[in-house]
Amino acid sequence: MSLRKGNLMDVRDDIQVLDATIRDGGLCNNFEFTDEFVKELYKMNVKSGIDYMEFGYKASKNMFKESDFGKWKFCNEEDIRAIVGDNPSDMKIAVMADVGRCDYKTDFLPKSESVIDMVRVACYIHQIPAAIEMIEWFHELGYETTCNIMAISQANLDQVKHALKTLAATNVDVIYLVDSYGSLYPENASEFAKIYLEAVEGTNKKIGFHAHNNQNLAFANTIETMSYGVSFLDATVQGMGRGAGNCAMELLLGFLKNPKYNIYVLLQFIEKYMVQLKDQGVVWGYDLQYMFTGLLNRHPREAIDFTKENRSDYSEFYKTLLDNF
Amino acid sequence: MSLRKGNLMDVRDDIQVLDATIRDGGLCNNFEFTDEFVKELYKMNVKSGIDYMEFGYKASKNMFKESDFGKWKFCNEEDIRAIVGDNPSDMKIAVMADVGRCDYKTDFLPKSESVIDMVRVACYIHQIPAAIEMIEWFHELGYETTCNIMAISQANLDQVKHALKTLAATNVDVIYLVDSYGSLYPENASEFAKIYLEAVEGTNKKIGFHAHNNQNLAFANTIETMSYGVSFLDATVQGMGRGAGNCAMELLLGFLKNPKYNIYVLLQFIEKYMVQLKDQGVVWGYDLQYMFTGLLNRHPREAIDFTKENRSDYSEFYKTLLDNF
Repeated sequence: MSLRKGNLMDVRDDIQVLDATIRDGGLCNNFEFTDEFVKELYKMNVKSGIDYMEFGYKASKNMFKESDFGKWKFCNEEDIRAIVGDNPSDMKIAVMADVGRCDYKTDFLPKSESVIDMVRVACYIHQIPAAIEMIEWFHELGYETTCNIMAISQANLDQVKHALKTLAATNVDVIYLVDSYGSLYPENASEFAKIYLEAVEGTNKKIGFHAHNNQNLAFANTIETMSYGVSFLDATVQGMGRGAGNCAMELLLGFLKNPKYNIYVLLQFIEKYMVQLKDQGVVWGYDLQYMFTGLLNRHPREAIDFTKENRSDYSEFYKTLLDNF
Repeated sequence: MSLRKGNLMDVRDDIQVLDATIRDGGLCNNFEFTDEFVKELYKMNVKSGIDYMEFGYKASKNMFKESDFGKWKFCNEEDIRAIVGDNPSDMKIAVMADVGRCDYKTDFLPKSESVIDMVRVACYIHQIPAAIEMIEWFHELGYETTCNIMAISQANLDQVKHALKTLAATNVDVIYLVDSYGSLYPENASEFAKIYLEAVEGTNKKIGFHAHNNQNLAFANTIETMSYGVSFLDATVQGMGRGAGNCAMELLLGFLKNPKYNIYVLLQFIEKYMVQLKDQGVVWGYDLQYMFTGLLNRHPREAIDFTKENRSDYSEFYKTLLDNF
């Protein structure tokens, strides 16, 4: 049985907090944040001591029309620079690149010419070879890299172990355990975390965790996996993210003992910008329909539709999900 | 290190689920539920396989005016019987008796004349002797009894251990770990649970857990303490309960593997009655103000006021809480 790392009272210097509000939250509003919102979020994150801020996706413009989305679906260099300038802060800038939905050979500058610090490569378990090709490309360009293996709760454990072994031999810096469907319980999440941590033992690679809140366990799973040695922790302001959302940054910063993290400026941001966003009708967060898809370990798309249609016939919806298992 | 009991796939036959919706939820609406609501909740709980249903408090009529509250603050025998008749079901009926706020010597019939099965005695750590006097009284009358030691996160650990040792020598049936302020993290909650479980080793007594959701951990803490052997689990429909509320019954029933628990009828109840209750303006559930009081390990009363006043100046409120630490 692996022992917990650290305790509830001390600082863990290896912890790195990543704000994914624009990227995962962008899935709630088609990435249509105002520049003011993004700029103030950036400034707040810097003041809060956040370690990384993810701006959005680097999506293929051959596959997605720029006019159909807000700019953070594409994260053009000049759009990021319009917010952060040359990013004079200690906080690093991340973007996400999806396997199969990113023109990575044409859309990334060498790191020396870019304000981006880290590229997070998101893939499903069967796309690991493609992900590794991208990771090595980004590594060559000079970026920090992560591999975010999504929907891990549906993957075969032997495949997971094989993928981790393969990744451990690459130049990737961080491997992320991603509970895309919010279906992991703390006991599952920590078992996975131990497998990930063992796979990178003896390397300098770190393990990250990205939670979804379908069963109201995003925060619990984040601190549980952290307790066993996971060090890259994703969170979003008020948990803003697709469907049931993610681990709430305010809960995470409240929990962390490192005095470099400042929750007060986060609260000021929430009352000024997040309350407004909700008033404008942007919807996310735990609700029964997401609990069902989490429980049944499946993609939340039907629950998102249920939400959009303002339905409250929960029992009928649940029955339909069971019918289509 | 204590080992977990059971696993995520099997049934734990010792589990007893208690629905506390009317009692803890009553703190949100002054116990003013309609008879239809309570009757339908009772019928639904029976169909869902719930083991105990708590109807409310047996509050002193010398201290509280009956006209100031809904009837479930007092749980008159005839009021319960108007809902359940002679309770022909397998589900047991519980009520709560607060130390110092209950005329227990006059307000309880012998069990043979009452439809109530269990009396839950709620107290703070310094009231254990008074609680024991009540517990033995109820035991003599023929009731199952519990001792719910509230606000455990503020109690001195030596006092807790002493209290448990004392209780282990009484006729109490169940001792409850109660996270009144929602300030426990899963690691804390499971450490407490292990201490409680050790204290009753070699007796027939069981340990229960009653969660609050201030840090969105009510469900997580419930299943975490359960995994170490806690067997009496409190939950409420949609987490309805004071402030941030409790462990949501739907999450708990989704988690439990015993096929006797039926989530479908619960969902039907929610869409018919709970949606209506919320529309009528009854408010509970996780929000930032409750996170603050949970984080600071204090009573939620200021957060409840903040909610009532429809405030959203979170940072100012947080600062005030810190000023009054």
